[in-house]
Amino acid sequence: MSDQKYFQNITTRERAIFEGAITMGALFHQFVGTPVSIDSVPSLEKAIEESLALQPCINAVKVKINREMLEKAENEYEYLSLTGDMLDVRVSSQYQDVKVVVRMQYIKELEYPLMYVEEVD
Amino acid sequence: MSDQKYFQNITTRERAIFEGAITMGALFHQFVGTPVSIDSVPSLEKAIEESLALQPCINAVKVKINREMLEKAENEYEYLSLTGDMLDVRVSSQYQDVKVVVRMQYIKELEYPLMYVEEVD
Amino acid sequence: MSDQKYFQNITTRERAIFEGAITMGALFHQFVGTPVSIDSVPSLEKAIEESLALQPCINAVKVKINREMLEKAENEYEYLSLTGDMLDVRVSSQYQDVKVVVRMQYIKELEYPLMYVEEVD
Amino acid sequence: MSDQKYFQNITTRERAIFEGAITMGALFHQFVGTPVSIDSVPSLEKAIEESLALQPCINAVKVKINREMLEKAENEYEYLSLTGDMLDVRVSSQYQDVKVVVRMQYIKELEYPLMYVEEVD
Repeated sequence: MSDQKYFQNITTRERAIFEGAITMGALFHQFVGTPVSIDSVPSLEKAIEESLALQPCINAVKVKINREMLEKAENEYEYLSLTGDMLDVRVSSQYQDVKVVVRMQYIKELEYPLMYVEEVD
Repeated sequence: MSDQKYFQNITTRERAIFEGAITMGALFHQFVGTPVSIDSVPSLEKAIEESLALQPCINAVKVKINREMLEKAENEYEYLSLTGDMLDVRVSSQYQDVKVVVRMQYIKELEYPLMYVEEVD
Repeated sequence: MSDQKYFQNITTRERAIFEGAITMGALFHQFVGTPVSIDSVPSLEKAIEESLALQPCINAVKVKINREMLEKAENEYEYLSLTGDMLDVRVSSQYQDVKVVVRMQYIKELEYPLMYVEEVD
Repeated sequence: MSDQKYFQNITTRERAIFEGAITMGALFHQFVGTPVSIDSVPSLEKAIEESLALQPCINAVKVKINREMLEKAENEYEYLSLTGDMLDVRVSSQYQDVKVVVRMQYIKELEYPLMYVEEVD
């Protein structure tokens, strides 16, 4: 069992944070660049949520892609490439009795899609 | 209009092939690496199909991810990272009156997920 | 040999266009999202060039990432995620005696990183 | 400053683990799928290292791609798509006085490229 062998040096709480953080980094770098439009956005959100929820210790993933930005897309082709500033994501991870929510959202004052721990028991 | 300015040096048929090929290359490199299981495979197929169908001149995208390979996944976590050898894809592109189907499938004798033009009018 | 079996239905010129287009689509969707700064840009350009040049029929790949946009990055962390509007790329493909250059560059009037055939013999 | 506002609910040690984990998840999902051969492997390793080291709290990234697997590639094209089982990575993160090394390596008994905390002060 991997837990006994590889995760003895961190706490239960650190493990839950660790797994949530991996999944958030994975999500961003797997899906940024995907073509997306106002019509395709529900299927993309669902696929991101279901695929990343497979990772170790992940209970649920909730993804909201900014519809306003998609509606403003004025190029000839009426779609955009997914970017970090369109994404608002919550990854819920759990290890043993500790639950964590890792959040990513674009913070205007930072000009950056910040990932942080929103909740931790 | 981009067509008049940028695509005068190729034929209608070449344009249909060009756009189908771009989309197939895009599909592979956007989605390879995504976590996938026997349960999440329908949502991933749908998202790939809907997102890549947004690209210029693409009428439809049909994706089949190999269920047998997913069922054989025997690691502790019961999912795999999507690889080219799991994918069977048809991208239908059209420019004016010319329709093309670009196919990708894993060819055992080549040990390679080959992309080729399956149909062209 | 795959050429005899899978590529009988297209011309030599179409094959060169096909392979160049696949590689351009691949390049965009593999590398968009990568963290990049004014200091790391040379190594990223080189890796993109060398990795995509491995694909079938590709002679050379030339990538220029827009330094001005990187210098303007004013977030706290002084790097950006690579986007299509930072990229100017030429992919040189060849099949038998036909050489093609596929170009991608951001076209302001289209608000879109356009891929097109820049040269073809 | 983002630290005061968003990271008050976790410890210094948890923050170092959090940032290392994000970067490891990012690395895997950004670069898996990239074409790689025995000749291109040094430039790819360097670009991965330099790009991911840009992320918050990351001091260094060390990537080793398995040469043996590349030498065994016997398809017609003599390259492979990068997969998790070729990668051995160490991400060194630091927040204030706490240093952490996050490791990813393919564990045969798990049939899985495991990410774990290898060192923590």
